[in-house]
Amino acid sequence: MKLLKDRILKDGKCFPGGILKVDKFINHQLDPNLMKQIAVELIRRYASSDINKILTVEASGIAPAIMMGFLLDLPVVFAKKKKPSTMGDMLSTTVFSFTKQREYHMVISKEYLQPTDKVLFIDDFLAYGNAAKGIIDLCKQSGAELVGMGFIIEKAFQKGREVIEKEGIRCESLAIIDSLDNCEIKLREE
Amino acid sequence: MKLLKDRILKDGKCFPGGILKVDKFINHQLDPNLMKQIAVELIRRYASSDINKILTVEASGIAPAIMMGFLLDLPVVFAKKKKPSTMGDMLSTTVFSFTKQREYHMVISKEYLQPTDKVLFIDDFLAYGNAAKGIIDLCKQSGAELVGMGFIIEKAFQKGREVIEKEGIRCESLAIIDSLDNCEIKLREE
Repeated sequence: MKLLKDRILKDGKCFPGGILKVDKFINHQLDPNLMKQIAVELIRRYASSDINKILTVEASGIAPAIMMGFLLDLPVVFAKKKKPSTMGDMLSTTVFSFTKQREYHMVISKEYLQPTDKVLFIDDFLAYGNAAKGIIDLCKQSGAELVGMGFIIEKAFQKGREVIEKEGIRCESLAIIDSLDNCEIKLREE
Repeated sequence: MKLLKDRILKDGKCFPGGILKVDKFINHQLDPNLMKQIAVELIRRYASSDINKILTVEASGIAPAIMMGFLLDLPVVFAKKKKPSTMGDMLSTTVFSFTKQREYHMVISKEYLQPTDKVLFIDDFLAYGNAAKGIIDLCKQSGAELVGMGFIIEKAFQKGREVIEKEGIRCESLAIIDSLDNCEIKLREE
């Protein structure tokens, strides 16, 4: 997706340790029009799939997910990273965050992820695939069908795609980064 | 806003201690079309105001905020509840969460809240006004003008509006709840 790649090169900032900061337009300040374009491109890629729900995880996945849900007229569910005090029966899994170097719980109310659901999972980054692994587990627990996963940015050198494709799940990323070595952003040509 | 009030009465669930659970359509599962209608109504109410940025706080404020930002073609910034490791110069304040009975930090990068900004703050709930107080503090620290605040649901009996109006800031809520006593949702007529 050219618009996105150009924006990453313009406004993305690289930090040692394979960190790409995109907080000017994706995960702190958001560019709503870019979010809409991202949603449109993900819709195009999953056009032939039968989906009845968009799934994401708080907080940075919510903006692209709600845009997709709006354009497709589908409900959106976001997994929470803490168990709310009022949540009833829930599905829960443990996820290791590489960025934060700690584990957290990812929870979804059983009411909003059902065996009849065909879900598309959306998130801002695919890195090591730990959040993706958590979502795959929650979908298995619920009996919902995980039709595919869509990411804004994939850091290919962190191999998260292998986690997803090993499970036979389709994975789409709108910008694939092959390397951040020497703080230089190397985007894959498509 | 009739559509919203009808939905609260249909799908909202009341719990002892003044808790209203709206996780079927606002803060766990989201109804994107309702979010758009909410954004439209908030735009209508602030039509005469000069705004250049939508401000919210993770996670449940993001969906209505991005819808407003999209419709108005304005950037959206969400305050974070934890300091990200890669955030540079930032504004920080402490907020007491009544629901969770603990304090948390609310942070915004200095880069995305500037003295030239005229911001509208959007959130899902106005309760005791503690998050609002945090946002007022962050705006004061940055020198940005806080033009107004817009909430999907206001629990009027928890008096958060007083915190906001005492500062001379405009406050708009799309559904005002006067009481949740005996687990009965009493919505204000307008």
